[in-house]
Amino acid sequence: MKEHIVIVGSVALDSITTPFGKINRGVGGSSVYSSLAASFFSPVAIIGVVGADFPGGFLAKLNKKGINTDGIKREPGKTFFWRGKYSWDISTAISLDTQLNVFEKFDPSVPEYLRASKHLFLANIDPVLQKKVLKQMKPRKSGGFTALDTMNFWIEHKREKVKEVIKKIDVLLLNDGEARELFEMPNLSRAGKSALGMGPRAVIIKKGEHGALLFTRAAHFSAPSYPLENVVDPTGCGDCFGGGLTGFLAKTDDVSEWNVRKAMIYGSAIASHNAEGFGLEVLKKISIVDVERRFNEFKSIREF
Amino acid sequence: MKEHIVIVGSVALDSITTPFGKINRGVGGSSVYSSLAASFFSPVAIIGVVGADFPGGFLAKLNKKGINTDGIKREPGKTFFWRGKYSWDISTAISLDTQLNVFEKFDPSVPEYLRASKHLFLANIDPVLQKKVLKQMKPRKSGGFTALDTMNFWIEHKREKVKEVIKKIDVLLLNDGEARELFEMPNLSRAGKSALGMGPRAVIIKKGEHGALLFTRAAHFSAPSYPLENVVDPTGCGDCFGGGLTGFLAKTDDVSEWNVRKAMIYGSAIASHNAEGFGLEVLKKISIVDVERRFNEFKSIREF
Repeated sequence: MKEHIVIVGSVALDSITTPFGKINRGVGGSSVYSSLAASFFSPVAIIGVVGADFPGGFLAKLNKKGINTDGIKREPGKTFFWRGKYSWDISTAISLDTQLNVFEKFDPSVPEYLRASKHLFLANIDPVLQKKVLKQMKPRKSGGFTALDTMNFWIEHKREKVKEVIKKIDVLLLNDGEARELFEMPNLSRAGKSALGMGPRAVIIKKGEHGALLFTRAAHFSAPSYPLENVVDPTGCGDCFGGGLTGFLAKTDDVSEWNVRKAMIYGSAIASHNAEGFGLEVLKKISIVDVERRFNEFKSIREF
Repeated sequence: MKEHIVIVGSVALDSITTPFGKINRGVGGSSVYSSLAASFFSPVAIIGVVGADFPGGFLAKLNKKGINTDGIKREPGKTFFWRGKYSWDISTAISLDTQLNVFEKFDPSVPEYLRASKHLFLANIDPVLQKKVLKQMKPRKSGGFTALDTMNFWIEHKREKVKEVIKKIDVLLLNDGEARELFEMPNLSRAGKSALGMGPRAVIIKKGEHGALLFTRAAHFSAPSYPLENVVDPTGCGDCFGGGLTGFLAKTDDVSEWNVRKAMIYGSAIASHNAEGFGLEVLKKISIVDVERRFNEFKSIREF
């Protein structure tokens, strides 16, 4: 049996409005987008919490995609809720309402039999919870990796906690604004190098419609973005990128720089698909064939 | 004898302040940066105007670089003057003072013997002047191209004139904000396609620290940016990109999509060098060997 990649993050109900339509209380959250993206490459085990209002059949749908949901607790109360809006400049979300609900007291617990998993993706949640999960995992004997994503909210509210957990991981993901904010320097190359100095062997700066950058001690890589003409809903694109990337790294069990470059393109391919529909609409529909096709398109976008 | 590329644009005196120092009334302007960049590849003929205060020996320095200055008029009065400032987020210039001076009544005239030149770069100036120069040129028998750069100021003040001249050219250069503004659409891929619909065979959207995009009817290309850690003064980077690009296209006399991709990387290589020093400091110093070295670095930045 192939080993699971353990993914911890939020499970949410999202109400999203964009210039092209809206969705009301659709399932979302960083761990859901990430897990679906990772599942194109690797078996996934998702760790999270949902409330009593969470749609009953959804976990079974994840299971069918090879996603183990034993680590999802169901608690009394309501599921984490987010209401957001995108205007014509569709790259920036405006948060209208955030209700932590059951997430407020979430105490993540990795099922015992999954604690020896070699691959761990700490998707975007409170760095205190990320650290808790990290502590529950058994020491890796060989191979494997821990990747971590974060966001401006945690950098602003728990900066030291974010830094603590970054020291313990292999692959750091964050977006350009967050990198500037965390390291207090406007130059992304310098911010990337500062991040490397904290411990990770690979630092990936996500730039949305401008692609993504990879910094390692030896080299620099710039992943292009896909020239999307119809961005319908960018919610979850960063999580898809992280999930696709870590899923591919888990499948190949190879965190060499060259393989991380490939993994970034797979992550970008899935994220670009995701933006073309509302909520999870596209992720539910596409197959690895669609992902591979877009991966190859990325090659032609980049050649000179 | 190799044919000249004719470059028309501004010749300026710039006073620039950045967090790393300042320069007082240094020579600049779109045609000067562009011509120096183009001169790595091709003989250049520059068309412009300077005032009585313009430093006497400067044109002779351009001549030594293979830049013909017969098309530069010296008029009574002062040279076009720009005072600008960059703060810690060094990507955006703040204009503090702009004095058109002799530029206000500039009536460009291409010397008769240069009017048969096959290669023309209309660098950033008033679209009315760009059109005037275009009209003076003799019809091309075979090969060659006209490239055009513009800026937000002209899009805001002379939108219809900008559109008129875009209809008559082969290669359009503009930055991302300008593309969004000119075509009134936030999506760059759509803006790029709208631009193609107006006539140019290649539309290049410059994104500063995020690289550049190429749109042709058949394909899409994304040029990475160079991971500069020490941006000292970005003044003229867009002009260096345009000059390097058109200089390479003139040298090769090949506007095929594949060659435009290469030309974009050469333009990026020169622009990235330029940002590492004040004003023209770096352009005066580097050689084609430095440009080729950086071109090769760009290959390693985008491989996967």
